[in-house]
Amino acid sequence: MRIEVLNTGSELLLGAVVNTHLAFLGQQLFGIGLRIDRQSCVPDGPVIGPVMRESFSRCDVLLVTGGLGPTSDDITRELVAGFFDLPLERDEAVFALIKDRVAKFGREINESLARQADVPRGMTMLPNPHGTAPGLYLPARTHQGQATPHIFLLPGPPRELRPMVLQEVLPRLRELRAKAGGAPETMKVFRIVGLGESQVEEMVGPALQAMPDLELGYCARSGEVDVRLIGPAETVARAAAIVRTEPALREHLISETNETIEEIIVNLLRGRGATLSSAESCTGGLLAHRITNVPGASKVFIAGPVTYANSAKVQALGIDPALLEAHTAVSEEVARAMALGVKHTFQTDFSVATTGVAGPEGGTPESPVGTVFIAVAGPGDEIEVKRRQFFVSDRETFKHLASQAAFYLLRRKLLLCAKSD
Amino acid sequence: MRIEVLNTGSELLLGAVVNTHLAFLGQQLFGIGLRIDRQSCVPDGPVIGPVMRESFSRCDVLLVTGGLGPTSDDITRELVAGFFDLPLERDEAVFALIKDRVAKFGREINESLARQADVPRGMTMLPNPHGTAPGLYLPARTHQGQATPHIFLLPGPPRELRPMVLQEVLPRLRELRAKAGGAPETMKVFRIVGLGESQVEEMVGPALQAMPDLELGYCARSGEVDVRLIGPAETVARAAAIVRTEPALREHLISETNETIEEIIVNLLRGRGATLSSAESCTGGLLAHRITNVPGASKVFIAGPVTYANSAKVQALGIDPALLEAHTAVSEEVARAMALGVKHTFQTDFSVATTGVAGPEGGTPESPVGTVFIAVAGPGDEIEVKRRQFFVSDRETFKHLASQAAFYLLRRKLLLCAKSD
Repeated sequence: MRIEVLNTGSELLLGAVVNTHLAFLGQQLFGIGLRIDRQSCVPDGPVIGPVMRESFSRCDVLLVTGGLGPTSDDITRELVAGFFDLPLERDEAVFALIKDRVAKFGREINESLARQADVPRGMTMLPNPHGTAPGLYLPARTHQGQATPHIFLLPGPPRELRPMVLQEVLPRLRELRAKAGGAPETMKVFRIVGLGESQVEEMVGPALQAMPDLELGYCARSGEVDVRLIGPAETVARAAAIVRTEPALREHLISETNETIEEIIVNLLRGRGATLSSAESCTGGLLAHRITNVPGASKVFIAGPVTYANSAKVQALGIDPALLEAHTAVSEEVARAMALGVKHTFQTDFSVATTGVAGPEGGTPESPVGTVFIAVAGPGDEIEVKRRQFFVSDRETFKHLASQAAFYLLRRKLLLCAKSD
Repeated sequence: MRIEVLNTGSELLLGAVVNTHLAFLGQQLFGIGLRIDRQSCVPDGPVIGPVMRESFSRCDVLLVTGGLGPTSDDITRELVAGFFDLPLERDEAVFALIKDRVAKFGREINESLARQADVPRGMTMLPNPHGTAPGLYLPARTHQGQATPHIFLLPGPPRELRPMVLQEVLPRLRELRAKAGGAPETMKVFRIVGLGESQVEEMVGPALQAMPDLELGYCARSGEVDVRLIGPAETVARAAAIVRTEPALREHLISETNETIEEIIVNLLRGRGATLSSAESCTGGLLAHRITNVPGASKVFIAGPVTYANSAKVQALGIDPALLEAHTAVSEEVARAMALGVKHTFQTDFSVATTGVAGPEGGTPESPVGTVFIAVAGPGDEIEVKRRQFFVSDRETFKHLASQAAFYLLRRKLLLCAKSD
């Protein structure tokens, strides 16, 4: 079953908005045994028509996002209705829902809002509890002698699209998947840190490439390499065993469930009933933000002061001003004192601290932009401090890499402590 | 000049990685007066070939990302060389650079790494200071009677692609742009909060749509609507005046420079030489993270304790345990006490605090999942507190919406204080 995605929206091509739909759809579809074969993105407007029609001959399912809203540049609904000669009929139930919804926000309905209640005859309306524009579904058919795919028209805003995909699209696709038959594929993703892509391939590539029904992929990310195994369950299991038992990989393998490093950390902490605090300077809250993205983080994460100014390091963590004076804020000594200070202040079992230079200003010959000191403290106040130097051009990338490095160090500490328990 | 982007990588279609290349390229290209007309994404492997060739007849410039790395699924270079019959020639300078680079990481070169030094004859090598795979550039030519576009092959990892685009691709595109001639377009984006997309269109749509050489776009985001004006400079200036002077829009217009709300806040604070602190519970560090993403944030942002546990609220902010007991942590009273507590502790001019229920657990009948109390304090300890209720399905969306709401309230406070100064 071939599946294509067409994302519409000038803002995506102008770079005003990052397209997060594709990744969301890719994950959800793979979860029910389906893959996206190809994706396109075009601006708002009539160009959507020909690009949509191009895909008709290539796919069995077409997911279109965007262009269902109330404004003049939203014309996806009308394009599909026009191509298939489907008269637009105002759906009174949808109209009432839209009226209700805008009334809730103290507004009155107008013609452009009402237009969203126009359903092309033969299309199924997909309710949108988070916005005014419902989605639309047209089953596969033959139009003017040409077979056309199952077409889903979905709203552009992610908070409207996501629930609609879960509630309306996946059940229909699951059914189509079942009718199409064929053996389902499974996927396993091994996440590896501290090795290059080609080193990983040298270790396991030859054995994995010898498996004919295995689809093997590598993805190099900031400081990580993913090895992706896709195929029949039994093949993937055999391939996974090869990766898992490669001795040279063992200490570098951080996950085989596609978990994020912050999920791994929260789970390790929960597993031992331990608590965590963080003290951040250069990562500016990113450690705390990533940890608190994990459901259940409140069971383990107590506090995470972002101590950006030196005065805040003194005030919130009890750092000795003389220490800051003697070593500067970006130093091994201060990282160590931050980790200890936050651990004692909030009485946690573990703590992690960062101090560095995110740039573009603030670099010195000793600590150029991109320098970070990371400290991790565990039971008995045993502390490990690491200095890292990243060569990056923007603050966000620096903060991300520094947070990854901090989480790897913390994970190692948690595993070492688990062994010695 | 028509431009297309082809993103390759199975990880993008499987949803393991979000495609951030398109937004980056879109922004950079618009900055030099160019637009991306269409984008496609395909998995790693031979399918890249036909999809690339399809685009040859449609565009003048093709930017291809990914597939240049050392592993077996990286075949973009070979596909292009094969199509144009360009023999691969090992570039000894590139080979030496790769060897040096891997030696720095304590590794030896192997054949898969060395393959990255193979440059198809006639292609220009684009240096990659952040990785081992150089980019490649093939100028427009006629091949077997068919005109082919300027082709840029770029590495997949963003930290390698971005500097290469800035240093190698933009200068070449700028030159092509100059040769192509034509009047440059300008863009203006107005960001509006507190109104629906269709309300905004009712106010300014008719006047803007009456301008024939104006390209008008709307983009609804979480709690924001962008109005996008593109066209010749003079047209955009006239259109901008219409938006700017619409009385009903005035109080909702937060930016006309495509600034983020956190940039607006940092700039407002810098403008008045004022300092800020934050105290976060449910947003878990996202306020501090977003503020510290702005270059120069260290001039105004002093500290941002993430006080996740109740004990941390007591410890770090001096909240009275009896207050927590009487009202629970998710209450107007505690939000107020957090804002005051952090402001006094760190002696800042302004402060912002959040407390709420991110879910999926922790909701109560009084404060269901999605509830947040936001408090903002300014000079003289004047405090404003707002309760908001979001209906969302995941923690990250909730945290984002809560942070937006907090920043809007803080911005209003900063503007009101500026007026009364």
